[in-house]
Amino acid sequence: MTTLLFYSDSDDIGSRVDWWRDTVAEQMPELEFRAWPDAGDLAEIDYALVWKPEPGLLASLPNLKAILSLGAGVDHIFADPQLPQGVPISRVVNENMALRMREWVLLHVLSHHRRQREYDQLQRARVWRDLEQPHAGERCVGVMGLGELGGDSARHLAAIGFDVIGWSRSPREVPGVRAFHGRDGLKAFLAETDILVSVLPLTPETTDMIDADFLSRLPRGASFINAGRGQQVVEADLLAALDSGHISEATLDVFQTEPLPVTDPLWTHPRVTVTPHIAAFTDPRALVRQVVEDIRRVERGAEVTNPVDPARGY
Amino acid sequence: MTTLLFYSDSDDIGSRVDWWRDTVAEQMPELEFRAWPDAGDLAEIDYALVWKPEPGLLASLPNLKAILSLGAGVDHIFADPQLPQGVPISRVVNENMALRMREWVLLHVLSHHRRQREYDQLQRARVWRDLEQPHAGERCVGVMGLGELGGDSARHLAAIGFDVIGWSRSPREVPGVRAFHGRDGLKAFLAETDILVSVLPLTPETTDMIDADFLSRLPRGASFINAGRGQQVVEADLLAALDSGHISEATLDVFQTEPLPVTDPLWTHPRVTVTPHIAAFTDPRALVRQVVEDIRRVERGAEVTNPVDPARGY
Repeated sequence: MTTLLFYSDSDDIGSRVDWWRDTVAEQMPELEFRAWPDAGDLAEIDYALVWKPEPGLLASLPNLKAILSLGAGVDHIFADPQLPQGVPISRVVNENMALRMREWVLLHVLSHHRRQREYDQLQRARVWRDLEQPHAGERCVGVMGLGELGGDSARHLAAIGFDVIGWSRSPREVPGVRAFHGRDGLKAFLAETDILVSVLPLTPETTDMIDADFLSRLPRGASFINAGRGQQVVEADLLAALDSGHISEATLDVFQTEPLPVTDPLWTHPRVTVTPHIAAFTDPRALVRQVVEDIRRVERGAEVTNPVDPARGY
Repeated sequence: MTTLLFYSDSDDIGSRVDWWRDTVAEQMPELEFRAWPDAGDLAEIDYALVWKPEPGLLASLPNLKAILSLGAGVDHIFADPQLPQGVPISRVVNENMALRMREWVLLHVLSHHRRQREYDQLQRARVWRDLEQPHAGERCVGVMGLGELGGDSARHLAAIGFDVIGWSRSPREVPGVRAFHGRDGLKAFLAETDILVSVLPLTPETTDMIDADFLSRLPRGASFINAGRGQQVVEADLLAALDSGHISEATLDVFQTEPLPVTDPLWTHPRVTVTPHIAAFTDPRALVRQVVEDIRRVERGAEVTNPVDPARGY
């Protein structure tokens, strides 16, 4: 019997284990669903559906056919130094996820563009005053990361009427978007950007990438929106750039430590918007459909839907 | 010599009269520009460029060839009981204006959709918690008014992925939008709408249109976004619907009285967002280009760019 092991270290996901069991059973009744720690004989496990697996867990499953990541980012899997080699890894990339990321990115780019945070402050002071601003065609939005999620958001920002540029590690083409790439393209990309949006994956190269030097290359008054990973940002450098006025505003969905500690100064900074890692909030029903699809593919000898390249780390 | 009379009762516009004189002179140096009250011989005035003209002013210009409205809404002109008959009226509808309205409408629809007001409250309380919500394809946005501005916004809402329906007085087609029309179509339209956006013009028919009965036809928990005219809303009824929870949230750019009086309860209602009539903030340079274009057209015997139909009132 084909057997799936479900593992999550998140209380949020873990507390819904019965929902997962029932929904997987509806869509694939022939699959045996086991939830950690009730894994039974580890040699019987064919598939592991995981969020932040404890180091060594995956290596303890001798007959694993594929690792399925609960979430688009797979850094939580590569964090395991004993990650078994040669086992295919699939990450969740579905239409709903790109749509949800698009909603969040468009909302916060438009909010920065239309100075909504300042209008909220004027409302609290009951002051009727209009603020000057360019129209979207005069505003350059720079999107870092042009994969499934970033490419989709960039295309939709261009459709609204923004001047959109993009940056990615290797060359990518997105209709309506002027694309830069690599270390050489980064300075020119940042120099043109008024509103910076990052949806980069977490890799050794992107860890701590957004530091004082990086931020200093943006024009004075630029703003920053992060839906990538918190570990890409040196948060003390970002706070310093906000306090100096070099960065006018930041909207952050991801943080060095999550949940964001109650004492963290980002919660209360007057020009920071915090959302609790919900930008591309995964629709669990769509996720189950992809899990079932991946298992069916591997069982018939095909590749998983969204294979991860271990060499790149995403 | 062709002569233009400039009249505005708004301090905001009126205080910039020198800018208007200079910018019109740059684009059409052969035009004589006179600013009220220095109108000279009224028989010499060919064109009137006006915002809220005092009643009788337009009737006192015997050789008027066209009335040019400073703003897309023309209710400020029809408010004059002595409005001369048979003089063409042109209202400002330019690309920038549709773009700016689109920015504002998309921002506030996405904010309602993604529950950003609640996330702002959670941030103030430093609470890390995700809120459930459908994706855009499961959310029905109803747009009232499918002309230049509303049609553009509706089309872009559909492109983002929302389920978009529209309502207008007479039948209109907008790609990707299911359209309703007339009194008969209104109830069915409202019954399906989760987020209601109005960009209706102010006419006798739309005055006080959005009252308790109208709001009761929306599903419980629907929200409301108004970029039309404040005189279309019975504000006491809207406040009652917000307090009862029937309407979950409102974002208002226009009000019965503008500027919104400092004592008005809308300023401080916990589920109302106020912006100071800036949704489709007119770019004055684009406006001057259209004024010059309209004068050149009439001088050569052609129709103005965006003629107003006096029978409809817009």
